[in-house]
Amino acid sequence: MKNEKMIEQLKKIATLMRYYILFMTTEAGSGHPTSSLSATELMACLFFGGFFRYDADHPQCPNNDRLIFSKGHASPLFYALWAAAGELTEKDLLTYRKFGSPLEGHPTVAFPYVEAATGSLGQGLSIGLGMALNAKYLDKLPYRTYVLLGDSEMAEGSQWESMEIASHYKLGNLIGVLDVNRLGQRGETMYGWDLEAYEKRISSFGWKTRTFDGHSIPEVLAAYEEAMHATDQPVMLIGKTIKGKGVSFIENKNGWHGKPLKREEYDRALKELGEIDKSVRGEISLPEDLKPRQQAAGGLVKKIDYPADKPVATRKAYGNALVRIFPQFPNLVSLDGEVSNSTYAEIFKEAFPDRFFEMYIAEQNMVGAALGLSRRGKIPFVSTFGAFLSRAFDQIRLSQYSDPNIKFAGSHAGVSIGEDGPSQMALEDMAMMRAILNSVVLYPSDAVSTERLVEEAAKHDGIVFIRTTRMETPILYGPEETFVIGGSKVLRKSDQDKATVIGAGVTLYEALAAHEALKKEGVLIRVIDLYSIKPIDEKTLLQAASDTRAIITVEDHYPEGGMGEAARSGLSNSSVPIHCLAVRKKPKSGKPGELLDYEEISRVAIIKKVKEIV
Amino acid sequence: MKNEKMIEQLKKIATLMRYYILFMTTEAGSGHPTSSLSATELMACLFFGGFFRYDADHPQCPNNDRLIFSKGHASPLFYALWAAAGELTEKDLLTYRKFGSPLEGHPTVAFPYVEAATGSLGQGLSIGLGMALNAKYLDKLPYRTYVLLGDSEMAEGSQWESMEIASHYKLGNLIGVLDVNRLGQRGETMYGWDLEAYEKRISSFGWKTRTFDGHSIPEVLAAYEEAMHATDQPVMLIGKTIKGKGVSFIENKNGWHGKPLKREEYDRALKELGEIDKSVRGEISLPEDLKPRQQAAGGLVKKIDYPADKPVATRKAYGNALVRIFPQFPNLVSLDGEVSNSTYAEIFKEAFPDRFFEMYIAEQNMVGAALGLSRRGKIPFVSTFGAFLSRAFDQIRLSQYSDPNIKFAGSHAGVSIGEDGPSQMALEDMAMMRAILNSVVLYPSDAVSTERLVEEAAKHDGIVFIRTTRMETPILYGPEETFVIGGSKVLRKSDQDKATVIGAGVTLYEALAAHEALKKEGVLIRVIDLYSIKPIDEKTLLQAASDTRAIITVEDHYPEGGMGEAARSGLSNSSVPIHCLAVRKKPKSGKPGELLDYEEISRVAIIKKVKEIV
Repeated sequence: MKNEKMIEQLKKIATLMRYYILFMTTEAGSGHPTSSLSATELMACLFFGGFFRYDADHPQCPNNDRLIFSKGHASPLFYALWAAAGELTEKDLLTYRKFGSPLEGHPTVAFPYVEAATGSLGQGLSIGLGMALNAKYLDKLPYRTYVLLGDSEMAEGSQWESMEIASHYKLGNLIGVLDVNRLGQRGETMYGWDLEAYEKRISSFGWKTRTFDGHSIPEVLAAYEEAMHATDQPVMLIGKTIKGKGVSFIENKNGWHGKPLKREEYDRALKELGEIDKSVRGEISLPEDLKPRQQAAGGLVKKIDYPADKPVATRKAYGNALVRIFPQFPNLVSLDGEVSNSTYAEIFKEAFPDRFFEMYIAEQNMVGAALGLSRRGKIPFVSTFGAFLSRAFDQIRLSQYSDPNIKFAGSHAGVSIGEDGPSQMALEDMAMMRAILNSVVLYPSDAVSTERLVEEAAKHDGIVFIRTTRMETPILYGPEETFVIGGSKVLRKSDQDKATVIGAGVTLYEALAAHEALKKEGVLIRVIDLYSIKPIDEKTLLQAASDTRAIITVEDHYPEGGMGEAARSGLSNSSVPIHCLAVRKKPKSGKPGELLDYEEISRVAIIKKVKEIV
Repeated sequence: MKNEKMIEQLKKIATLMRYYILFMTTEAGSGHPTSSLSATELMACLFFGGFFRYDADHPQCPNNDRLIFSKGHASPLFYALWAAAGELTEKDLLTYRKFGSPLEGHPTVAFPYVEAATGSLGQGLSIGLGMALNAKYLDKLPYRTYVLLGDSEMAEGSQWESMEIASHYKLGNLIGVLDVNRLGQRGETMYGWDLEAYEKRISSFGWKTRTFDGHSIPEVLAAYEEAMHATDQPVMLIGKTIKGKGVSFIENKNGWHGKPLKREEYDRALKELGEIDKSVRGEISLPEDLKPRQQAAGGLVKKIDYPADKPVATRKAYGNALVRIFPQFPNLVSLDGEVSNSTYAEIFKEAFPDRFFEMYIAEQNMVGAALGLSRRGKIPFVSTFGAFLSRAFDQIRLSQYSDPNIKFAGSHAGVSIGEDGPSQMALEDMAMMRAILNSVVLYPSDAVSTERLVEEAAKHDGIVFIRTTRMETPILYGPEETFVIGGSKVLRKSDQDKATVIGAGVTLYEALAAHEALKKEGVLIRVIDLYSIKPIDEKTLLQAASDTRAIITVEDHYPEGGMGEAARSGLSNSSVPIHCLAVRKKPKSGKPGELLDYEEISRVAIIKKVKEIV
């Protein structure tokens, strides 16, 4: 039992935080005060009740506990916490939501105490799970990860993915704090104040739970106290709270989500808060000074070695590459969505089982966890079928605002997978991954270039997508060939080239076959391996545009947002005609060759198009 | 208790189905026999045990029970069921997975008994939920919806979204059949044969559950018997099964997922099955002949009426439009992800509460349910923030293979939302929605065009995406103006136009302002409202390309896959230079105007670009 003095102090701090919350949102004229007020005691007690351990001078200190606001709209509370800790002034709070301020509407990493940008609901727990995995299995440090959750966002399926995986990995170092304030954006949540409904569901997923009054400081302190004793079970602290708590005329009222107080209301509210001691400051405990376990950076990177005459699937080369480059990138970890025998992440798993995490068929949580790992200095390689990466598009999208360093490998690209049919075919993946700001999109055709590009991906700090192919494809390159992000390879070239055909993956081989066939008829074409879709090799494309009469792109992807449109954008300074062959008919089951012909992206279609042009 | 004769008959049918499963997969040389064999009794008893009611001559009969294979890879079982029902011959089964056959690798609607294409896991329950909602709340018919689920796919968060919403809507007419065969694709599932783990989780979500031996015909029959008595609670029948059941050398063995038997193995397997009575046929009960409740197609569609001088947000016009056009489209229903006061779906909800479904913050299930409703003849309008539609990209992607008729409305487009910051900004949504085959992407700028385009969306049979804006924008058009899918409007035009500026949404107003400013300096530009991003108005664009020196597109979206690349593709037959202004820097919180300037998509940037060109 904490003493009375601490409770009095925490009450003062909570009042000060409420003041800050109202102050900054009224000043900004927007924001979410009511969603912040409900969780004020929950957060004040965590930070200043002796539980949270954090070296505020070193936000990246590996021993710091981690706190993620999954309910990102409660950002005023987050900033109020740091103001109460003495790290932000009232003047800083005046910049809240203003252009250029690190105190953005929803938290972003522009503010150094933010672990990850949030604001799309139901993602914080996955991110926290990644950090907790890191603590328990990689860095082997005793830091804890806390996630503040809203009740409305518990409707998101991604929450239950995190829940099941956290329990599976026995993450007793992961502590959810659920702010049950009953009201969502437009009305009551599905369960209102039925705390038992949450407890039943969450505990059935293997979590330790505790319900309590989220505004009673002794009860909140006791809840955290208990959470400190967790060993193998993740903990969910379920607090019953009141939205708008502390200001009678907005307490527990619908219609007050995301609304600041007007000036006159603000004045009234301050009176209700009572005495505000602006001099009070909370203290955060410092963490222990422990060293993260270092992965032995063992050995030399082996040479690439594929027999020149034996086709290898690029997805297999992806798995081989992870193993090969690991000595050079000891922070590398691999995550897979229960398809590691298809993506060939299993090759890495077998070589380095401690660095592989089976994330089961739960892609959203997998991507969120990857972000958490990335924020703790790891280089996660996330693999599943390219089609199923679309399951986590919102997670991928949101991750871009957290300066992430994540590599995505999507296998089974396009109709060339054949008999399994359209549900398994990645046909929108390049559009999806190109649309992410500053992303890199790579699409190797053979095993050697895949190996090299996986290596480049690991070197590059940022989001990289690697598209791999199901079927085996011939080796095109010698083991010493180099590949760079933003590069391409001109595979066939002459002074008499009539047209340029650009391919990647299976279509590159179709282009090469078309080249052979046309050559016999005396028609020469240039063939380019466009292995870097984004950024794109403008120089080589422009050269081809000036040397030949037309550009033909051929891609096993729908027409929009893929290689064709990438090439059009890359050639915006040229007036050469560009023809885009792409998947334009609803695909079906069938043999790969039949489907390439049907979609008019095979050698037959290329030859036809070249003949139309020349 | 069913009699001995029926049990004997069902045993014979199950054996025949096992034969069909092995026959077609060995013939095809690919497919998932083991995942089919585990659920054979589960499905045979449903179909031929007197439970399933279906008029096989009329697959679209509104009284038919519905069956969805969420574990779509068990398609051989689905086809075996219909073969055992006498609707497919062995010759038909020979076409399984062959090009042009309706019997695709994963079920698609090419086969008329398939309710919806599946194959991306964890989606069938949401689709079924849509059909069950339709039965209970719209058609008011007693049909039941059954969903066959795999145990591996229970890891998907989307399952728990369906679970909570089905329970919330008291869908006693929704029956899940969970095939717990212990093994996923690459090894054991998280819970193996721990049926209690599933039961605990599922019942905590408010479902009625029952566990049993999934290969014991009397037990399976008894389970269905009990499910028939459900009233308000959805039911999950949890069967313990053996992957590969019936063929000793593949039973419960890892490494047999998605692998057909080789010819020699097949011969051995057939011997193990024992006597196969190829003459046995199962009978499916016929449903009652009831009429679906008809929505009164009441009244005339009102005229559009906005004061010409009062700005209106297009998201608000969206809500108004739904109400206005409802008399013309009585099959219209509205679904929203707990943000109806932001998307303005609440306007429809208030007018027609029976036709509105609150789907809470669970976008994946919302989209799956919309597909289910669409397959039962409704026209679902699905709304949330455009950014959060990305949460359901896999569901949107998969829906395209079910001939869907779904309208998506994504509000809060782009950086112009302002202070809330990047997490809430839709900046990849056009790329995502354009990439869907045969999708329509609309982006109205004012209230009148929004109203008209919502109407066009309702008329159009297919996937339509409508992008709306948070802020209020001026009225541009008279109430009688017409808009068509694939159209555009030339708003400023002269014989002296130096360049063409193409905008939509907020950027159109920036283009108009740039026009005014440039005009004062004697520079005339053409301004086009490109309200239909896909299909695109090639004719008008080509005319502008031939009339003016350059095209400038301006979009509140990232550069890839959006309006700029759409325009480039639409202008592929022109050599006019195209300049794309788009969001190219990481956005932040700020005032809309500040952000448009920062991203160089405001009038300032347009004027600058025009001056560079002319």
